[in-house]
Amino acid sequence: MKFLTVFENTPVSPPPVWMMRQAGRYLPEYRETRARAGDFLSLCLNPELATEVTLQPIRRYGFDASILFADILLIPHAMGQPLAYREGEGPVLEPVRDRAQVARLAGDSAERLSPVYQTVRNLRAALPAEVALIGFAGAPWTVAAYMVEGRGGKGFVAARRWAFSDPDGFQTLIDMVTEATIHYLLAQIEAGANAIQIFDSWAGLLPASQLERWVIRPTRRIVEALKARHPQVPVIGFPRGVGPAVPAYCAGTGVDGVSLDESLDPAWAAQAVPAGVVLQGNMDPQFVVAGGPAMRAEADRILAVLAGRPHIFNLGHGLVPETPPEHVSELVAHIRAPVGAGA
Amino acid sequence: MKFLTVFENTPVSPPPVWMMRQAGRYLPEYRETRARAGDFLSLCLNPELATEVTLQPIRRYGFDASILFADILLIPHAMGQPLAYREGEGPVLEPVRDRAQVARLAGDSAERLSPVYQTVRNLRAALPAEVALIGFAGAPWTVAAYMVEGRGGKGFVAARRWAFSDPDGFQTLIDMVTEATIHYLLAQIEAGANAIQIFDSWAGLLPASQLERWVIRPTRRIVEALKARHPQVPVIGFPRGVGPAVPAYCAGTGVDGVSLDESLDPAWAAQAVPAGVVLQGNMDPQFVVAGGPAMRAEADRILAVLAGRPHIFNLGHGLVPETPPEHVSELVAHIRAPVGAGA
Repeated sequence: MKFLTVFENTPVSPPPVWMMRQAGRYLPEYRETRARAGDFLSLCLNPELATEVTLQPIRRYGFDASILFADILLIPHAMGQPLAYREGEGPVLEPVRDRAQVARLAGDSAERLSPVYQTVRNLRAALPAEVALIGFAGAPWTVAAYMVEGRGGKGFVAARRWAFSDPDGFQTLIDMVTEATIHYLLAQIEAGANAIQIFDSWAGLLPASQLERWVIRPTRRIVEALKARHPQVPVIGFPRGVGPAVPAYCAGTGVDGVSLDESLDPAWAAQAVPAGVVLQGNMDPQFVVAGGPAMRAEADRILAVLAGRPHIFNLGHGLVPETPPEHVSELVAHIRAPVGAGA
Repeated sequence: MKFLTVFENTPVSPPPVWMMRQAGRYLPEYRETRARAGDFLSLCLNPELATEVTLQPIRRYGFDASILFADILLIPHAMGQPLAYREGEGPVLEPVRDRAQVARLAGDSAERLSPVYQTVRNLRAALPAEVALIGFAGAPWTVAAYMVEGRGGKGFVAARRWAFSDPDGFQTLIDMVTEATIHYLLAQIEAGANAIQIFDSWAGLLPASQLERWVIRPTRRIVEALKARHPQVPVIGFPRGVGPAVPAYCAGTGVDGVSLDESLDPAWAAQAVPAGVVLQGNMDPQFVVAGGPAMRAEADRILAVLAGRPHIFNLGHGLVPETPPEHVSELVAHIRAPVGAGA
């Protein structure tokens, strides 16, 4: 698999390509399947339909990697925290705000996610042999931030305040999420995932003084637990928004690759991130909405800067619903055009 | 003034201190004055009341600097773009989305902001001699992003798309805002402001490839225009969210100081930012909500890391409405406690 070759510290040209949220609302076939599933949670937990939406972008674009269709909040759901997805509002959870509420959560939650493992098995059977299957989970800080806050969008202030003012109490939640995530990701690997990505979408909301305890340490615990059983499975971290702390994140967690958000200059990353770490990224998804010469020039810039370094082409964040699907085709074709072909 | 001494490349111990949004909803006396003013725009444009709310935190806490009470959207308002502040929703503007709409804006807007200059004159007369008065404006990118989007909170996707897909058209808006901002800030200085801060609150939404054109170049234009007339007035930039690009921002714009958001490790900044640039920041405002030992320990960490370097103590972002006012007193007292006093 071209995608896995990159992790042998071998640059591949053109680089493998996939896109965060490649299965999603911008695709008419996704919207059709989603309508059949009913709510979002039912879609995530229906192996047949989750398999279908995961495969849709592979059929259309022939990406080098497929990412399991699921949601980072399946972990709190499996822990017994009431979760609903409200149209136009995003996910809403009943907040967990103290140790007593943490103690009421179910620690043995990974079993309850068996439909997800069935989706992984279906996918590994259905995907072309050369397409890697990426399993994923949210990082403990990001998942815990949702669990405490109950919803996104407001800077997760309740989670930050709890972490700052009662770190030992907040640690009990982080530890529980970390353990559940380890079991969840091990089960995904054992069902057939070829690589893992850990999404710490809200890492950038923490001040630098808190990054080691809430981002780096729990992620290292996960990476170590996965490596102990499956040393050959690459783990990609996505510490969105941590800026100059990306190199410390890589060194501290032991990830094999790091996904760069669009705010980062790939030239900076190429110099600052340890050479053994694969760089993934990092086009602004709004360039894919724009399309055309602007999108192609931005792709060329990223490809040129990261040429000669193990690189997986991706976005800095997920594809947005307004993306015209033909712009994705255009981008994939452009990346795969032979160098010097004048594309 | 202790605040200005720092800009003579002289570390001051303890450092001068002020806090972004130090005049604001967390103060009961602010809420009382705000209720008298009616809406937010009326408060900004009423010299008597704007002077009063600016002075309130100085009376309570004796900060080393006062910042003019105003809003970054006064510039579009003065340009004739309809603006309303809706309770619970924030500012709403009628979006400007193409060159024709830009052409209808008033270029000579700075005159219309004369109530703001009256507030500056009032303040300079009323403030103690040792308290610096900071004037401010939004940076062109951040102001233009609001003008195009019409509101905050959604990642300013319309502004990003316009900048990416029609850079020459978007440039006409940036240029117009830049010129208006120069006139506005010159008038603030001429009315008595001792220093200027330029808030680029949404700089972090731009990918690295776009930073030079939309953030650095317009800011440099402003800094150069201010320096040409008032070389002694320090200019502080606040490129929030740009992470590892902070040093390039400082070098490219010529600012005298840079305000660091809370995601940045001050130890990194002390090493990466050119030595002649004053560092301002950067406690997470949620630590001031938390208060107590956690807040004091975080202050100590920042003070220790930046000791020996010209530093202005501040937050990484504005004080939030939930902040207990007594935590601010506690923080100021702690910063001013003699080193080694065991505070």
